[in-house]
Amino acid sequence: MTAVSDEGMWLLNDAPKQRLKEKYAFDLTDAWLKNAMLASVRLNSGGSGGFVSAAGLLVTNHHVAADSLQKLSRPGEDLLRDGFYAPARDKELKCPDLEINVLQEIVDVTPEVNAAVKPEMKPGEAFAARRAVMGRIEKESLDRTGLRSDVVTLYNGGLYHLYRYKKYTDVRLVFAPERQIASFGGDVDNFEYPRMNLDVAFFRAYEGGVPAKTPHFFKWSGTGPAGGDLVFVTGHPGTTNRLETLAKLKHRRDLTLPYTLARLRALEAALTQYSEQSGEKRRQAATDLHSVANARKAFSGQYQGLLDPNIMAQKKASERQLVENAAAHARRSRTGEGPGAAKGAAALDDALNALEAIEATQARLRAFEQPYGLVETGHAFHSPLFGTARHCVRMADELPKKSADRLREYRDSNLESLKFQLFSPAPLYPELERAKLTASLTFLAETLGGEHPLVKLALAGKNPATRADDLIGGTRLFDPAERKRLVDGGKRAVDESKDPLIVLARDIDAEARALRTRFETEVEEPERQAYAALSGVRFLTLGNTVAPDATFTLRLAFGTVQGYEVGGEKLNFHTTFGEAFDKSEKLGGKEPFDLPKRWTEGKSKLDLGTPFDFVSTADTIGGNSGSPVLNRAGELVGINFDRNRHGLVRNFVYTDVQARHIAVHSKSVLEALRKLYPAGPLVQELTGT
Amino acid sequence: MTAVSDEGMWLLNDAPKQRLKEKYAFDLTDAWLKNAMLASVRLNSGGSGGFVSAAGLLVTNHHVAADSLQKLSRPGEDLLRDGFYAPARDKELKCPDLEINVLQEIVDVTPEVNAAVKPEMKPGEAFAARRAVMGRIEKESLDRTGLRSDVVTLYNGGLYHLYRYKKYTDVRLVFAPERQIASFGGDVDNFEYPRMNLDVAFFRAYEGGVPAKTPHFFKWSGTGPAGGDLVFVTGHPGTTNRLETLAKLKHRRDLTLPYTLARLRALEAALTQYSEQSGEKRRQAATDLHSVANARKAFSGQYQGLLDPNIMAQKKASERQLVENAAAHARRSRTGEGPGAAKGAAALDDALNALEAIEATQARLRAFEQPYGLVETGHAFHSPLFGTARHCVRMADELPKKSADRLREYRDSNLESLKFQLFSPAPLYPELERAKLTASLTFLAETLGGEHPLVKLALAGKNPATRADDLIGGTRLFDPAERKRLVDGGKRAVDESKDPLIVLARDIDAEARALRTRFETEVEEPERQAYAALSGVRFLTLGNTVAPDATFTLRLAFGTVQGYEVGGEKLNFHTTFGEAFDKSEKLGGKEPFDLPKRWTEGKSKLDLGTPFDFVSTADTIGGNSGSPVLNRAGELVGINFDRNRHGLVRNFVYTDVQARHIAVHSKSVLEALRKLYPAGPLVQELTGT
Repeated sequence: MTAVSDEGMWLLNDAPKQRLKEKYAFDLTDAWLKNAMLASVRLNSGGSGGFVSAAGLLVTNHHVAADSLQKLSRPGEDLLRDGFYAPARDKELKCPDLEINVLQEIVDVTPEVNAAVKPEMKPGEAFAARRAVMGRIEKESLDRTGLRSDVVTLYNGGLYHLYRYKKYTDVRLVFAPERQIASFGGDVDNFEYPRMNLDVAFFRAYEGGVPAKTPHFFKWSGTGPAGGDLVFVTGHPGTTNRLETLAKLKHRRDLTLPYTLARLRALEAALTQYSEQSGEKRRQAATDLHSVANARKAFSGQYQGLLDPNIMAQKKASERQLVENAAAHARRSRTGEGPGAAKGAAALDDALNALEAIEATQARLRAFEQPYGLVETGHAFHSPLFGTARHCVRMADELPKKSADRLREYRDSNLESLKFQLFSPAPLYPELERAKLTASLTFLAETLGGEHPLVKLALAGKNPATRADDLIGGTRLFDPAERKRLVDGGKRAVDESKDPLIVLARDIDAEARALRTRFETEVEEPERQAYAALSGVRFLTLGNTVAPDATFTLRLAFGTVQGYEVGGEKLNFHTTFGEAFDKSEKLGGKEPFDLPKRWTEGKSKLDLGTPFDFVSTADTIGGNSGSPVLNRAGELVGINFDRNRHGLVRNFVYTDVQARHIAVHSKSVLEALRKLYPAGPLVQELTGT
Repeated sequence: MTAVSDEGMWLLNDAPKQRLKEKYAFDLTDAWLKNAMLASVRLNSGGSGGFVSAAGLLVTNHHVAADSLQKLSRPGEDLLRDGFYAPARDKELKCPDLEINVLQEIVDVTPEVNAAVKPEMKPGEAFAARRAVMGRIEKESLDRTGLRSDVVTLYNGGLYHLYRYKKYTDVRLVFAPERQIASFGGDVDNFEYPRMNLDVAFFRAYEGGVPAKTPHFFKWSGTGPAGGDLVFVTGHPGTTNRLETLAKLKHRRDLTLPYTLARLRALEAALTQYSEQSGEKRRQAATDLHSVANARKAFSGQYQGLLDPNIMAQKKASERQLVENAAAHARRSRTGEGPGAAKGAAALDDALNALEAIEATQARLRAFEQPYGLVETGHAFHSPLFGTARHCVRMADELPKKSADRLREYRDSNLESLKFQLFSPAPLYPELERAKLTASLTFLAETLGGEHPLVKLALAGKNPATRADDLIGGTRLFDPAERKRLVDGGKRAVDESKDPLIVLARDIDAEARALRTRFETEVEEPERQAYAALSGVRFLTLGNTVAPDATFTLRLAFGTVQGYEVGGEKLNFHTTFGEAFDKSEKLGGKEPFDLPKRWTEGKSKLDLGTPFDFVSTADTIGGNSGSPVLNRAGELVGINFDRNRHGLVRNFVYTDVQARHIAVHSKSVLEALRKLYPAGPLVQELTGT
């Protein structure tokens, strides 16, 4: 909570130059920022990465690449488990549905967005007007620049910025190590430190069938960071809740998180059971299971955080401080004294009204949050096949409308990316989808009760297991051609379809849309207006010293490389290769502490003192996986892949006493590639030799 | 639902002689029944078994023995995993806290119990009066006979029978196979068929330091059953809900089961994570994890059953039939025609009032079922250490009272068994208890919310993880001597204790007792009275053709040995040794389909055609694990160990289309003991040669 902490996931167009100058005597230049922006990459599978050569080569985490590794695998050929290396470019494997985005430009469109919403509008009208103006700005930008254009809501509604991205949809796999070393320690060591993981993978972006030209890239550091070094993380943190009010956090603690944890545990149990049935089923479910287990662990940490009276007291104190600041500002404004006194006479009223409005919103949300999550978000139908069915049904209704009037995901500027996903030829496994659908339909009934109209509608007179059999057994949506036929055929094709998943999506759509509208008008819009007011007060009283909450858009964080103490034990800022071998031996080489044969057999070739993973105080969260970690010179010294468990509360508060993010050390990658893998050309490309 | 099905877990003193005569031309003699009763065994760890020699030798399941196997194990010596055999009696291992009961006599005490409850009593008074009379009957019986004496409530309150048991507390382990073969297929194949499991273990009961004399025992059949054979199961089925009303089942479906499933999944996730941390932790958590996973799977099956509209329709129809029968009977009674017309003029009113009362009870229960389960049943404090703390606290308050006025578990006739458990020297592992307590305290908060007074009381200003650290780190209850000191020291010792678990049990006791009283007066007593009325109507209209719901007391079931069809495939009534080797090979010998070295190396010694496990239509449920399966001659032909998944709905309805119980074939045990294990003396004792 000190003004000079390393807190903050900063906007690239509002970077903490002053702070870095004062605290670290570092001059953050526009050239440095520009290269960082143009070399940083967002992966639509939910992570970050960075270009590391001028020929489109990019690095990310193995666990971010897992989605593509899984989709490129087949029975008997498990790239996720066994790894992959393309010794030549024509051996690189095209991913079926991986899209990456590279931010080119940020434009502040706050005035334009705000101008479209008039004070006299009702919430529903305000929501529609804002959606329309955002859609129009995006469409115009797309038409004018040809770039993917997204209006991003910052400070929960305080600012609106237009982000323009260069998009690549031909992305090919270059290298991935074995899962054993990428996620050494598995779920046990997830969110723990010390760690010894080679959690990296390399892809290459292509354009027009040839490697993309990427003149802006990060030079690979051969030395990596030293203890105490200032480092930067450029990546796409997903979600934080630091600016949320106490009432919202209590709602999360008492409603959202218990529901989420129950849901994840139900899925995890089903996926674990499925995996245990055979090696092939284990392979099929691997990424689903990892992502559910990872989420369950992250949310469990958040939940312990919100049950920690110290953290709640801290949030309460900072809310009180905001009110106090507002009162002081309002007083100054009335008396005309002090800085910024010109406006803000209503600051205190604004703050108190906004806090009250957000609290009232939670009471409304409580009444329908679960049906909303189950039926509109789709928690009741946990299969990409249902998502596909819903898109087919909704596109038939939405596409004939003007872009600005459509549900936001169907706006023109998003259609290309959406179809890229929708028509993906990635393999799906009927038995796995059936297991997931059974579990989620069961969770629906458990949550709402057997007599609830939505449950009856979804189950159609069957129990969940039988219903899932029917849906998966009868659908033709496994075939991308059938999906294309339905989308191209429009309303008529969809209405005529007897595909049981299409029928389900159609039958439930009126209810689902009603819940969405209710959410937008009763929760989203009032919250957005209230948070905008709170942001206004914050800008007025604190200026731009507080970074916005994370939104899966590009941010810059900074911190120093340093170890920490836990239970009296001092943990070094980095681990070594030797520690991986030691730990595996100590635990009998048993899964998840087994090492790949390549490593056990090649041990003598390695310099065991090579730094493996390291930690720093920089501010990260989920979505930062795969983020480049940079030194003062802007060189890549690491690839972020995790936080420790002390960092799990970072959704709500920043702390640097023990909380750390964890990164693969740039040196370890070179040492492993050189000594253990036959990856000469890759090393040459990274080192430019 | 046909009158001639094999449904029923029958009372030994009201056995279905007529039915067996008519359907199977079998003459169920009193001598047969007497031997079955005196040779059948109940294990307090939650299963059944049977004497198989005159020298106290008894057989049960490996998974029933698991609790004792675990408690007899130590780091580095894992009897649960590796098995055990005592080649001589002085090598048999005394179990730290295994008690077994052998039923000696049943006495109907219904009139005496009912006489104590007067119509004018309020529910709380009626409950206390009934508890007092039951306690007095038990105490008098104990004093007079020296036998453990329990009054058992049958038909949910329709009948009260006094059960007198001979009790053994010196029970020693004789033989257990490796877990790999006992639970081949693990959680994956649990509740599935075909199965290839040697799920058996042998104990010996001792008296006065020497093997108990058990002249009533089951002769071990060297041939086992043939297809189509009539077989009997004598065991202790735990709980069924077949006589519950539709309103009660809906309550289970919409409230009790979703809560139970959420709770089990939270525990299972925590135990799985704990197990994955190391081999030793896996050993520590093995029985906890198995029992939670088994329960989760069983309850999931029940839940799917209650969501099956066919099953609910069946329950509704049978409730309607009861009302119709009552109406017809009342009519006959008024007109004085037909059999049994002498009484029952009010049958229809009785039935309708009872149905209404049970429905009203569910609405009341809904308001406090979760706090009751969490705080009084103890779901919030999932550690035997908390149970110990609570017993210490409550014994201090209860023991000074007259036996008949105490909470039922502290009645004189139960004290010896309770203390045997309480002072058990079985090992407990602080880190495991901490993990379980963290998970269950977290579940408490998830269920009731962070601001709930009970949550605040339990967490005492900490988050669950920290609170569990404090409780487990600070308690001295790991030491049986400390438990004894507290119990012997009475109220003063307990009041002076600063042990954090004692303090917690003390602090929460007023709330817990209040919830218990509320449950007894608002739910248990009204339901008991209503079910007694329904039972009365049922006796009047159907006589004794319906067996009471299971109550973990000795019952007799019967059925025929027969395979079944699933998905067009015909499954044979038994499996063979050869199928175990085939399946293991097909699945790459990977856990849980790995076989013990003894088996893979000894394969050539075995007759691979030996029948391994078999199925029959007899009516079983959890608690029947380890039940002797007998032929017409009363010889042991199998040891029941599981149901298939089609049998999971047997809590609510009996079906024999696909539902089967699964038993180890008596022949397979002899073949394995002879050929693979150096167990000559055991085989000699079993075969009497």
